[in-house]
Amino acid sequence: MAQTKPNYYVGVDLGGTKILSGVFDESLNPVDKHKVSTKARRGPDAVIQRILRCVLDAVDECDLKIDQIAAVGIGAPGVVNPESGKVIFAPNLAWEGVALKKELEKRLERPVHVENDCNLCALGVHAVELNGKPDPMIGIFLGTGIGGGLIINGALHSGFNRTAGEVGHMVIDVNGPKCSCGKRGCFEALAGRASIFRRIQVAVNEGQKTMLTEITGGDLAQLRSGSLKKAIKAGDPFVIKVIEEASVYTGIAVANLINILSPEVVVLGGGVMDALEDSMLPLITKTAHSYSMAGTTTGVKIIASHLGDHAGITGGAVLARAESRRASTSS
Amino acid sequence: MAQTKPNYYVGVDLGGTKILSGVFDESLNPVDKHKVSTKARRGPDAVIQRILRCVLDAVDECDLKIDQIAAVGIGAPGVVNPESGKVIFAPNLAWEGVALKKELEKRLERPVHVENDCNLCALGVHAVELNGKPDPMIGIFLGTGIGGGLIINGALHSGFNRTAGEVGHMVIDVNGPKCSCGKRGCFEALAGRASIFRRIQVAVNEGQKTMLTEITGGDLAQLRSGSLKKAIKAGDPFVIKVIEEASVYTGIAVANLINILSPEVVVLGGGVMDALEDSMLPLITKTAHSYSMAGTTTGVKIIASHLGDHAGITGGAVLARAESRRASTSS
Repeated sequence: MAQTKPNYYVGVDLGGTKILSGVFDESLNPVDKHKVSTKARRGPDAVIQRILRCVLDAVDECDLKIDQIAAVGIGAPGVVNPESGKVIFAPNLAWEGVALKKELEKRLERPVHVENDCNLCALGVHAVELNGKPDPMIGIFLGTGIGGGLIINGALHSGFNRTAGEVGHMVIDVNGPKCSCGKRGCFEALAGRASIFRRIQVAVNEGQKTMLTEITGGDLAQLRSGSLKKAIKAGDPFVIKVIEEASVYTGIAVANLINILSPEVVVLGGGVMDALEDSMLPLITKTAHSYSMAGTTTGVKIIASHLGDHAGITGGAVLARAESRRASTSS
Repeated sequence: MAQTKPNYYVGVDLGGTKILSGVFDESLNPVDKHKVSTKARRGPDAVIQRILRCVLDAVDECDLKIDQIAAVGIGAPGVVNPESGKVIFAPNLAWEGVALKKELEKRLERPVHVENDCNLCALGVHAVELNGKPDPMIGIFLGTGIGGGLIINGALHSGFNRTAGEVGHMVIDVNGPKCSCGKRGCFEALAGRASIFRRIQVAVNEGQKTMLTEITGGDLAQLRSGSLKKAIKAGDPFVIKVIEEASVYTGIAVANLINILSPEVVVLGGGVMDALEDSMLPLITKTAHSYSMAGTTTGVKIIASHLGDHAGITGGAVLARAESRRASTSS
């Protein structure tokens, strides 16, 4: 009897603190997922072992065998070369030139496809949440940092150096606060979670009163996006103002992208948006409209993704399925 | 005897002050060109008559007849709908909803194709000056204002609302000087000719000494890009500083676009670049490299176009030829 053709896909989101993997069926329905911590300080080999375990455990959890997996798609937080499958540069992992595809394929004996993590999030949101329709689509992901992904002519746009979508380092306030990249006034330095938390900590150290002190039990190192949500719900004027400012900056960044690319849909995701959509989205949208040129926003939708941290693994599965289909067509 | 198939193309650049038309042969070699003033204050009908005269005079100058012209491509300074051929909004002409294609086709009895002027400049530079090769390519045109055009996957990227490429209204200094669009710190308000001239006039009124006073015979309303070139050549420290600042802002804008789109080539054109390439390009390039993310600039070329004010008419001819070929293939 002929063996059944493998018809499941695994998407992996490799982050600085955790690795998430998910198994998806042929129609990209999620079957099950698994999470482990990254432990990046142990170095690339140890992290690759942990990715492997995370994938195998997710597959086992679904009562599947690895040979039922057609392919794996994995998103890494940095500059990657999808052709070679190498991670060129990933500051949060302290990786440079890691042959991720080759190492995983050797151990898994399945085809592995590597992409930038935010590119995969955009791909997942576009293909599954938005049914592959909007074109162009811009995905912006507000987390610790800010990343993005572009869908143009129905496909991921990664450009000449495969680095397109680095919207977080678009300068919008040239004299603004210093960014982790060394420049001043990047979008990420104005509206990323790390910059928001830093601003709050500085203000509190200077005597600013806020409910966050109580919410975090006096230890602002314990701040989470959810803490901000609680403080806003309770009417904390300081936190409301900080998030309003971040929303205005985000709206200006969205307007810049609308002016440059004329998208049909701008979709916002990431941990900050997941927690603060109600507070942020209306002001982002209002600001984006007021900063965009006449005629550029007609019919344009600015929306929030509701895939949460499934965006990356979904995008990984989308990539894995697309590459498998391409391989079977060309063979 | 069968009539010869029309195999010439006319490109038209409709500007706020002048109309330029050029006749090109089947291989896009320029044959001849003609220029008239726009006289926008006389209203759309009068301007359309002047476009018509400009096209017919250019054709006559080449000893051609209008039925030897396969098609006309025209760039308008504003938001256009290439499908309907309407100019939706062109502030420099005070036009709203002008049926440019329809009116010109009625009078010329030849197919007319309408695009945004900077999109056509990018198309002309890409197809003729750069042999259709770089992909993606970003064209940035520094004139009175600043516009741009994007080539992605070998074709003009105009996006969902056909408005892509409005790079001049990308905010890069949110608290910066006011822009003609009403916002603050747009790239155009920092590095466009009008903003550079305004800054010079304000400084001179406040007592700043500069050779420009002498070069313009004491009337700074007579400032031209060429006046700046003369002052820089003579070592005027004030003008050197003003142009250095504009170059740094331009470099930051280029870096933002590299981070977002990962182009292979960024090409700079327009009257300001035509006059000041030697002073500006090295600093633009240096700044762009320092503001771009690691890995995004490998192999990327930042260059100046040398098509000058032929970029727009060349792009018009490129569009006209492409549309004619498409029509003959599909018929």
